[in-house]
Amino acid sequence: MQPLQWNGKSLLVLDQTLLPEQEVWDDCDTYELVAEAIEKMKVRGAPAIGATAAYGIAIGANAPDALALDKGPYLAYLEAVNERLAKTRPTAVNLFWAIKRMRGLIAANTDLSVAELGELITREANLIAEEDVRLNKRIGQNGLQFIPENARILTHCNTGSLATFDYGTALGVIRAAHEQGRVQHVYADETRPYLQGARLTAFELHRDNIPVTVVTDSMAGYLMQQKMVDLVIVGADRIAANGDAANKIGTYSLAVLAKHHGIPFYVAAPMSTLDYEMETGDEIEIEQRSADEVIFIGGKRMVPEGVPALHPAFDVTPHELITAIITDQGNAWQPNTEAMLKLK
Amino acid sequence: MQPLQWNGKSLLVLDQTLLPEQEVWDDCDTYELVAEAIEKMKVRGAPAIGATAAYGIAIGANAPDALALDKGPYLAYLEAVNERLAKTRPTAVNLFWAIKRMRGLIAANTDLSVAELGELITREANLIAEEDVRLNKRIGQNGLQFIPENARILTHCNTGSLATFDYGTALGVIRAAHEQGRVQHVYADETRPYLQGARLTAFELHRDNIPVTVVTDSMAGYLMQQKMVDLVIVGADRIAANGDAANKIGTYSLAVLAKHHGIPFYVAAPMSTLDYEMETGDEIEIEQRSADEVIFIGGKRMVPEGVPALHPAFDVTPHELITAIITDQGNAWQPNTEAMLKLK
Repeated sequence: MQPLQWNGKSLLVLDQTLLPEQEVWDDCDTYELVAEAIEKMKVRGAPAIGATAAYGIAIGANAPDALALDKGPYLAYLEAVNERLAKTRPTAVNLFWAIKRMRGLIAANTDLSVAELGELITREANLIAEEDVRLNKRIGQNGLQFIPENARILTHCNTGSLATFDYGTALGVIRAAHEQGRVQHVYADETRPYLQGARLTAFELHRDNIPVTVVTDSMAGYLMQQKMVDLVIVGADRIAANGDAANKIGTYSLAVLAKHHGIPFYVAAPMSTLDYEMETGDEIEIEQRSADEVIFIGGKRMVPEGVPALHPAFDVTPHELITAIITDQGNAWQPNTEAMLKLK
Repeated sequence: MQPLQWNGKSLLVLDQTLLPEQEVWDDCDTYELVAEAIEKMKVRGAPAIGATAAYGIAIGANAPDALALDKGPYLAYLEAVNERLAKTRPTAVNLFWAIKRMRGLIAANTDLSVAELGELITREANLIAEEDVRLNKRIGQNGLQFIPENARILTHCNTGSLATFDYGTALGVIRAAHEQGRVQHVYADETRPYLQGARLTAFELHRDNIPVTVVTDSMAGYLMQQKMVDLVIVGADRIAANGDAANKIGTYSLAVLAKHHGIPFYVAAPMSTLDYEMETGDEIEIEQRSADEVIFIGGKRMVPEGVPALHPAFDVTPHELITAIITDQGNAWQPNTEAMLKLK
C-alpha cells in the first residue's frame, strides 16, 4: 500500500492519523495543503516526507497563478514555496534533502521558461518517488545478511510502505527476509504517543501475512529478558556523520536494552537520511510536539487537567549502541565517522 | 484520597478504571463483589489488594446466611471465601499474605462462636488497613535518606494513596521527601496499558501540589540521557528472598536504563510484599492479562482486527539492578539473599 498517489496535478495523501479504522485520502492540490499534511502527520516517515515535499514543490511550481508570473518573480515564488515546506518538521533530514535537491535543480536551469521549469520540477518529484522504492529494495537486500533463520524481530514505529513511497526501510529489510522465509515473528512496539506501531506496522505486516504481535513500548525489556527477541531493527529520521541516529522517541531506550541483553541493534535508512554536515547527534534538533498528543488518546483525556506532559518526538541513539547501519549504498558495521565516510 | 471506605458492613471501592474522569464508588456488600473489584482492577496496587481481600473475607464472614450456619459448615464456608479471593490475581503477594493471616487467625480461634469469629475477622481487617497506613509512613521515613535536595524523580505506575490504604509506598517516599522540601520534580511514566501513571499518579500528586509531568514509557531513556532524572523509585508486587522484585510491566526496562546511566534505582514496599518462600524472581508467576487491554484504549480499537497483542502485567527486576529496597523495617542496600534476611 502506497501512502501517496500522484495524479499528475495533485497529491492524494492517505491520512495515516485515521488508520486502521478509516482509509481517507486527502486531495492536496496546493503546496499549502501539502505542507499541512506533513505538519499534522497525515503523512509521516522520513522518506515519505521527502517525497511529499518534492510533490508539494511541484504542485506549487505548476499552480496557474504561478505559471503566469515572469521568470524573476516566479523564481522568488519558488523559493517561498521551498521555505514554507522546510518549516513543516525539523528533525527528518530527508525533507531538507528533497528541498535542497529541488533548489539545486532550479538554480541549474534558470535559462528555461517558467512552463519548462514547472515541468522539470514535476519530473524530479516523480524521480525522487521512484528512486525511493528502488533504494528501499536495495536496503532490504543489504540488510538480509543480518537476519538469521527463524528470526524473531522487534521493531519500533512504522518504517514500512506507509513511511516511504513503498516497501519500507527497516520493514523493507523484514519484508526481504520474509520473502526468503527467514522471519519467524515480528514484535511491533505500539509506539506511543502516535501508536504508529499498533496502527500502521501491524496493519501492513498483517496484510502481507508476516506474523506480527503488538506489544506496549514498556514490554521490550521483558521480551528480551525472556529471550523472545533475536534482533532489533529500526529506521532513522537523521543520521549524523559519526553514525549517531535520530529516530522516533523510544528508540534510544531500545538500543540500551539491546546492548544490555547482547542483542544486535540495526538502523536501516536510505543515504538521503545521512547528514554529513552534522558531526554528531548532539547537533540534531529534536522536534518538541504538542503535549496534547500525549494527554489525549483517541480524543479522550488520559491525564488530569492542569498536569503537563512532555512530547519530544524523537531521541538520538549514539553510534556505540548501533551494531550496523544498513543503507542502499552498503552497510556500516560498528558505525563511526570513518565507517560512515566509506558509505559516502 | 483513600481508595477504600469501610462502613462497618460493606466496602466502598473507588473504581480506579474510571479516574480521573469520573469518581464512582462501588458498594461491595458480598465477598464475590469484592473479588470482582480486584479482578477488574477497580482496586489495584499490591497493598490495597491485600486490605481489600481482608475486608472481602470480613464481609463473607458476616453475611447473614453464613452467621446462621453451625460452626463446622461455617469454617468450611470461610475457607471457600478465602479460596475465591485467592483466585483473583496471581502476582501481588500481599493478597496471599492477607489471606494467610486470616487463615491463621481463624485456625487459632475455632473455640469461638460463629458470631464471635465474624467480629474477630472484621477487627483483623480493620487492623490490616490501619497498619498499612502506619507502615507506609515508616517506608516514607526510611526512604528519605535516598532523596537528595532538589530531586528530580522518575516513577512508574501508581504506588500512592490509591495503591494502598493511604499515603503510598514509592509515592509515600516522594510524599515524605516533599514534606521536607526536597522534591524539585516528579516525572510519571504514563504506564501502558492501564495508564495508572497518567491517570492516577498525576491525579494524586497534582492534588497534593507536588510538581508532576507525565511522559510516555518510551521517554524514560531520553529523560535520563538528557540528565533530567536523579533517581528512579518504584513499588513492588512481590519481592523474592534474594531481592528480585516483580512490579508493573516496564519496571525492568527502567532498571536497565537506570543502570546504563548510573542513576540509582529504588524499590519501596511493606514487608508483606516480601515472599521469603520464593528463592528468586524466576519463581514468581507473571499474570498474563487480556490482550484487549492493550488493543483498545478508552474503548477505541488501536490495533487492526486479527492482530494479536501480548499483555504480561508485570516483569521481574533482578536484584543486581536495584540500588536499595526500602521497607517499613529498614532498607536493604544492594539487596541479595543475605541483606534480605537481615530485614526479616
